[in-house]
Amino acid sequence: MIKIAILGFGNIGSGVLQVLRTNSASVARRAGDTVGVGYILDVRDFSSHPDARLFVNNIDVILEDKTVSTVVETIGGVDPAYYYVKSALLAGKNVCTSNKELVATHGAELLAIAREKKVCFLFEASVGGGIPLLAPIRDNLCANVVDQVHGIVNGTTNFMLTRMEKDDMTFAQALSEAQRLGYAETRDPSADVDGIDAQRKISILASLLFGSEVHPADVPARGIRQVGVEDIWFARKMGAAVKLIAYAKRDEKGKVACGVEPMVLPLCNQLANVQDVYNAVMLHGDMLGDVMFYGAGAGKLPTASAVVSDIVDCAKYGTAVHDTLFWQPSVSQGPIIDSGSYTYYVRVANQDVTTLEKDLGGVGMLLRHRTQIAVLTYPMTAKQLEKAILRLEKDGIHVAMSMKLLGKREMIAE
Amino acid sequence: MIKIAILGFGNIGSGVLQVLRTNSASVARRAGDTVGVGYILDVRDFSSHPDARLFVNNIDVILEDKTVSTVVETIGGVDPAYYYVKSALLAGKNVCTSNKELVATHGAELLAIAREKKVCFLFEASVGGGIPLLAPIRDNLCANVVDQVHGIVNGTTNFMLTRMEKDDMTFAQALSEAQRLGYAETRDPSADVDGIDAQRKISILASLLFGSEVHPADVPARGIRQVGVEDIWFARKMGAAVKLIAYAKRDEKGKVACGVEPMVLPLCNQLANVQDVYNAVMLHGDMLGDVMFYGAGAGKLPTASAVVSDIVDCAKYGTAVHDTLFWQPSVSQGPIIDSGSYTYYVRVANQDVTTLEKDLGGVGMLLRHRTQIAVLTYPMTAKQLEKAILRLEKDGIHVAMSMKLLGKREMIAE
Repeated sequence: MIKIAILGFGNIGSGVLQVLRTNSASVARRAGDTVGVGYILDVRDFSSHPDARLFVNNIDVILEDKTVSTVVETIGGVDPAYYYVKSALLAGKNVCTSNKELVATHGAELLAIAREKKVCFLFEASVGGGIPLLAPIRDNLCANVVDQVHGIVNGTTNFMLTRMEKDDMTFAQALSEAQRLGYAETRDPSADVDGIDAQRKISILASLLFGSEVHPADVPARGIRQVGVEDIWFARKMGAAVKLIAYAKRDEKGKVACGVEPMVLPLCNQLANVQDVYNAVMLHGDMLGDVMFYGAGAGKLPTASAVVSDIVDCAKYGTAVHDTLFWQPSVSQGPIIDSGSYTYYVRVANQDVTTLEKDLGGVGMLLRHRTQIAVLTYPMTAKQLEKAILRLEKDGIHVAMSMKLLGKREMIAE
Repeated sequence: MIKIAILGFGNIGSGVLQVLRTNSASVARRAGDTVGVGYILDVRDFSSHPDARLFVNNIDVILEDKTVSTVVETIGGVDPAYYYVKSALLAGKNVCTSNKELVATHGAELLAIAREKKVCFLFEASVGGGIPLLAPIRDNLCANVVDQVHGIVNGTTNFMLTRMEKDDMTFAQALSEAQRLGYAETRDPSADVDGIDAQRKISILASLLFGSEVHPADVPARGIRQVGVEDIWFARKMGAAVKLIAYAKRDEKGKVACGVEPMVLPLCNQLANVQDVYNAVMLHGDMLGDVMFYGAGAGKLPTASAVVSDIVDCAKYGTAVHDTLFWQPSVSQGPIIDSGSYTYYVRVANQDVTTLEKDLGGVGMLLRHRTQIAVLTYPMTAKQLEKAILRLEKDGIHVAMSMKLLGKREMIAE
């Protein structure tokens, strides 16, 4: 029997137990042995739980039990998860975690410890929830050099944008609906709506794809608070949709650009059609072209099923996974700037087309609705857009919103 | 060095050489060693090719060379590929192939030989071209029982249906465009348009998912020849699209249903938005829900990159892959019948709504266009539909087209 310990018996942790029990036969067939839970660590009182005998409240019991080969960490957050995970790796145990904050912040160090101790440190569930994503990147895309990734990696904001589009809700209405359904936190929803969750996930993806640590704090993140109903309306008229996109790319010289921001996506882009709480990640490989992985980016059982697939990988493939699942530590270089040129969507509450065209250096498409105008600019850099916005403000035209256009062409040809 | 031999230097075979050379460093890092091509078997004359020294025209040279660990088969078709692949496995060499006809016809036998000889038999490129699909099923979905798969697995017909929809082409016009671009064969396009290619691919997927050989000849296949411009038009009006869907499902009692046929997909179904030559496969796992893999289903370099990922898997994971990539041989049971209930799209060139409603037992939606009517029926089995069609014909109403509706609800709740 492969004996594991689960740290944290919340939503995901209890899901791991449920998945292991529901599909025990199929998991055993694939892992080459049965997988049994030896301990569950949780500080809360589970003495009346049917599995009460499994619960412990001291990590040392688990660390000292030589028969525990794999530790599952589903506590979330950095403290005490970081200490527990590091101790488990140092004690020679494999660790599988769903904790994106931990991996984004301490991934490089923990991967190095795992490599040194010849154990696995796996975290499939940390990005894209239940969607197989890190393992396919690690293994199946090995014949490709992946130069860019664009993803919808936060289900809550995608749910909100979908409601704003389909049910004509405002941001505030969509947020309160997301909170009512338990998708967004009631007290402080900023981890989702301000792009912090997506920032952590794209840091993990970028680090893995490019082999060098990308610090979350260096990734510019802008959430969906400024997205207005007008933007959703104008985008729809353009045959497009507004999505919160997390992206990372590396140019031919090795320069990395990375960020999280709302973008305007023509419907021919597969990501534009991803609705509700679903996630999707589109990668571009030099041999393969575009490839997309789509599915449930959150939820108890989907996320737990990804954790269980990591447990099986530990048993089946061992440390061979770290030949390709690895990144080097790096020193923070400050905010990562994307110096590429893009077509921008710009919305102003003004009808002075002449000044608008002059200050933006011409426009490629223009739509009017009541007192507002939305345009698509000619390609320009973020810095050029910033200067144009300053010119507009000086001329008395306030820019209510600006977003990059993420066409399909750009994704293929860039 | 991992020394390989390539059998067949056509489109895919030469692509494998190109991928290995273009991304040699990244492949070597992931395989744990450099991968070098020792032989290329092709009966044609390549004496003036820059790699002329690699070419041989006798398989025995390769089989007898103990330093060749892996053989790549990209000849296509059953003969002589079957003989070559079987000989290579029996000689103790791993085999990676892109040959769907071979795998669909002889997969069970070749997998058994591979297991016995403790070598790998891998065929990622045989379904979905470059899309990582069989490996994620084999490895990353291990915590799930997958009960159904629906896919667009033939790029040529998807290209044709896209042109019929976007450019208002007829079937004949779309076919000639596909032939002009080299997507469909000029002499006999039936492998694509009659669903034979998709039939082979879904046989492989069904065999892998359900663990028991599904014979291509037992899978009912119906291509897109009967899809009229009217059907595309009516579907669009219904907020839907016509797609050639290959599917396989297994109910709770273990009964397998499998087929290839054009279906009507509401746009909320992710598969409905897959355009042009792209492929996409949607799987449903009991823990994960829907998950979709999307990308280039054909093409020289995408397909070759999938073959190369198999070469790396042989080197890295060895025969551990066969714990989960395996199916048992089975005796053909004759045509597989899908006895499930579906909403059907039915089109008639008649305006007699009363008789139509009576013979179909009521309709859920009805659209008129010129002299034609298209309806969505209430859920019924294929047998019930057949009887209704007979009633209609008896009443003088000819059914021009009927297709299942593949909603999103069905995919999740069924």
